Amino acid sequence: MKIDELYALLRRRGVLWPSAELYGGAQGLYDYGPLGAALKHQIEEAWAAWFVGLSPDYYLIEPSEILPEAVVRASGHLENFTDPEVECESCHSAFRADTLLEKVRPDGVDGLSPAEIGEIVHNAHVRCPTCGSLALSVPRPFNLMFGMEFGVTGKERAYLQPETAQGSYLAFPRMWDVGRKALPLGIAVIGRAYRNEIAPRQVLFRMRAFTQAELQIFFAAESFAVPFARVQDEKLPLLRVDRREKGEESPEWVSAAVAVRDGGLPEFYAYHLVQMFRFLRDGLGYPAERLRFFEKSVKERAFYNRIQFDAELHVESLGGYREIGAVHYRGDYDLGRHSQGSGRDLSVTVDGRSILPHVLELTFGVDRNLWGVADVHLGKDGDRTLWRLPPYLAPVAVGVFPLIPKEHGATADRVLRLLSEAGLRARADDAGTIGKRYARMDEAGAPFCVTVDGTTLADGPDHDTVTLRHRDTKAQERVPIDALVARIAPALRFPRPVSA
Amino acid sequence: MKIDELYALLRRRGVLWPSAELYGGAQGLYDYGPLGAALKHQIEEAWAAWFVGLSPDYYLIEPSEILPEAVVRASGHLENFTDPEVECESCHSAFRADTLLEKVRPDGVDGLSPAEIGEIVHNAHVRCPTCGSLALSVPRPFNLMFGMEFGVTGKERAYLQPETAQGSYLAFPRMWDVGRKALPLGIAVIGRAYRNEIAPRQVLFRMRAFTQAELQIFFAAESFAVPFARVQDEKLPLLRVDRREKGEESPEWVSAAVAVRDGGLPEFYAYHLVQMFRFLRDGLGYPAERLRFFEKSVKERAFYNRIQFDAELHVESLGGYREIGAVHYRGDYDLGRHSQGSGRDLSVTVDGRSILPHVLELTFGVDRNLWGVADVHLGKDGDRTLWRLPPYLAPVAVGVFPLIPKEHGATADRVLRLLSEAGLRARADDAGTIGKRYARMDEAGAPFCVTVDGTTLADGPDHDTVTLRHRDTKAQERVPIDALVARIAPALRFPRPVSA
Repeated sequence: MKIDELYALLRRRGVLWPSAELYGGAQGLYDYGPLGAALKHQIEEAWAAWFVGLSPDYYLIEPSEILPEAVVRASGHLENFTDPEVECESCHSAFRADTLLEKVRPDGVDGLSPAEIGEIVHNAHVRCPTCGSLALSVPRPFNLMFGMEFGVTGKERAYLQPETAQGSYLAFPRMWDVGRKALPLGIAVIGRAYRNEIAPRQVLFRMRAFTQAELQIFFAAESFAVPFARVQDEKLPLLRVDRREKGEESPEWVSAAVAVRDGGLPEFYAYHLVQMFRFLRDGLGYPAERLRFFEKSVKERAFYNRIQFDAELHVESLGGYREIGAVHYRGDYDLGRHSQGSGRDLSVTVDGRSILPHVLELTFGVDRNLWGVADVHLGKDGDRTLWRLPPYLAPVAVGVFPLIPKEHGATADRVLRLLSEAGLRARADDAGTIGKRYARMDEAGAPFCVTVDGTTLADGPDHDTVTLRHRDTKAQERVPIDALVARIAPALRFPRPVSA
Repeated sequence: MKIDELYALLRRRGVLWPSAELYGGAQGLYDYGPLGAALKHQIEEAWAAWFVGLSPDYYLIEPSEILPEAVVRASGHLENFTDPEVECESCHSAFRADTLLEKVRPDGVDGLSPAEIGEIVHNAHVRCPTCGSLALSVPRPFNLMFGMEFGVTGKERAYLQPETAQGSYLAFPRMWDVGRKALPLGIAVIGRAYRNEIAPRQVLFRMRAFTQAELQIFFAAESFAVPFARVQDEKLPLLRVDRREKGEESPEWVSAAVAVRDGGLPEFYAYHLVQMFRFLRDGLGYPAERLRFFEKSVKERAFYNRIQFDAELHVESLGGYREIGAVHYRGDYDLGRHSQGSGRDLSVTVDGRSILPHVLELTFGVDRNLWGVADVHLGKDGDRTLWRLPPYLAPVAVGVFPLIPKEHGATADRVLRLLSEAGLRARADDAGTIGKRYARMDEAGAPFCVTVDGTTLADGPDHDTVTLRHRDTKAQERVPIDALVARIAPALRFPRPVSA
């Protein structure tokens, strides 16, 4: 499906729609409807189970998403969190420079100065997409943070966090005190981040308010021990800088061991690339051949990132690879900046030595991956529309239907209660023909449907059976009600990360 | 415990702390640490299970928390969402008028004009709490919304939502189209709301960013059928306006049936008071005698609320009753305002009639109730600190301890995996003596602990047993590993609302 077709289907099914659409929408903001909110919730739970589950010393916290000015000054966002903006001097439309130059310079403008970008725009005779004028301004840095007055004095300012990571850095000293005072220490956040994007677009791929799931691992440089032997044979789809410079777009499959031995990656870094890869493949069910790890060059990545690979998915609806996560080795930049900014030394004492921890950041875009999950798993099978979600991601795990509501309703209620009490996500549907109910559940991605019918009642209350129908195969079988949970529950289990 | 003592304990245990405390904190903003975030998550899940579970036609959605200006203009917040602010003309400190007048006028200043409030301040010779001056300004209305520039033009403005309800109202037409086009239709949101409070205080009770859980039920006036017979005998602690006018503070226990027959409440309203009451008592485990429903008078409630009872908990750490939720019968105000504001008639056709649905709003403060749960359940038993959380609310359901990590670690891992795969929230702890580990789990509210010890291994892998220890009684029993899930899972089950 193309973007428009997929987005139309998602709107129609109530997965998501433009925020405030009653008022013409708000650019870059989206609302999740029942299916979207439930799927997003399942993706978040899966992410937390996987990444927070990597170690008993990793924790999920929920910091405030409003940051006082002192924080974003120290982190560098107040000064540097900008995109080059070009204004049309005829019609006063505003554009992101990299978007304007998309065709001229598909690799983007990271690392170029405003003057250099301006020269490229000028030399390429780029015209204003709105009015066609050639009178485009030299780019100016536009800060992407949403700022606001905080408190009643009119003198204090605060900002919506542009990334969830800052909350974890700020929490580090408190978490050190609360925890067992050892490294590595992991602090995870699933939260909203906000960017006043110059040009929001591609629905969930460049939003003004979006959800990030991030794990910041604080560790002592050069002593981050990981169970590397358990992952070393996993092959990863790497697109490294040297290959990119030769114009290659497809990744090379390299085992973690080789990426370390010949590719110069630290073991701890390669280990976490494997974890990210396995989560995307085994957790979200992305086909391995649609994934790649895109290495950013020194010029492209933020100066404090020592190593950066973006996790990319080939998103068919967008016609190419898109970033859906990343692994950043940020060194001691973050705790160093906040030590300076706050005047409190954030070094900790480990084995008698005072050290400023380094940070490995695993970041994951929840909204982008929700789109990715739709792109990969939502499709047609003949005239059926069905969402082949991995069962543990499905908003509804089991649809429960009384064939004739008046006759079979009470028994269906009993089945619903039984499944709910076992922690399965069951939902009743008693409207329309069984075919229509199957179709609705297929579109919602429910892996199982249970129908209570005449045979159920004929069996008698002690050995009554129901029809269990499987989404992907449409296969049906009769299962005693008492055996339902045991039959269904194993398929709903989430795969565990390898370290656990 | 008093507020300071309880707050200190919660900080020390990493439940919550001031946001950006490294920079001296940000007034009215708090971060949740691992225990706090997990407990908040459990409270939210419990709320959703209860209230969204009231009907198959109720849905949880996740709308944007940023609202374009047109929305807050239509809803009335741009004009009216203000608190009276008094400024000291000597030292320029700012105060909320009702806080300044707390001792003079404990019932608050709702419904009074700024001039009337100014007169009371003047006549009572109130002094500036900061500098002692009598030169206090006449109150001015201070708008509590956080506003910001939206987009690059500098001309568009947007606001952080001051309540989650607006997102549900905006979603109504889309949800109508997506759903089965019938009333009642329920739209629930668990989300952040933001208020630039003049004087944040009492930790989680007046915050600048907080989480609300709200259910908006859209229904056809005078035909909202509820299974009233099932709840009519439940006695509710009502403090009605007539009693309040006599100076009474304690509620009167009145059955739902009597509240309807003699008290004039509609059945649908009394039914939802019962649901709220039962959720607070059976879901959160608040003692019934610490709850009351506080009726707001015509003057106190917003003009569009036809009936309003605040759910209040007697919070010992704050020395009195505090609002923790409410039930608002809002009539057709909200859809009427948005029909006007958007120019789109939000009436729907039901049985051939065009009607503008009325709204019943069930609102619940997640942060306040997290404090409430701490206030009620966290306490001392001799020299133990323990959190007697209802088991389904506990962030950790089962602590798993290898007595001697080197010897019993592998078996403990197996137990941990077994419990995790059954969906129980298990966490390992292998640090320190068993006594210390019990103490940590007691403070975290874990209802169960499992210890793997020498006997386990002596039993042999086919019939190995572990020690199961119960939090509240400290009772211990030996349970075969294979029987653990069946022994523990029933106690973790969440009670279901009566309608289900």
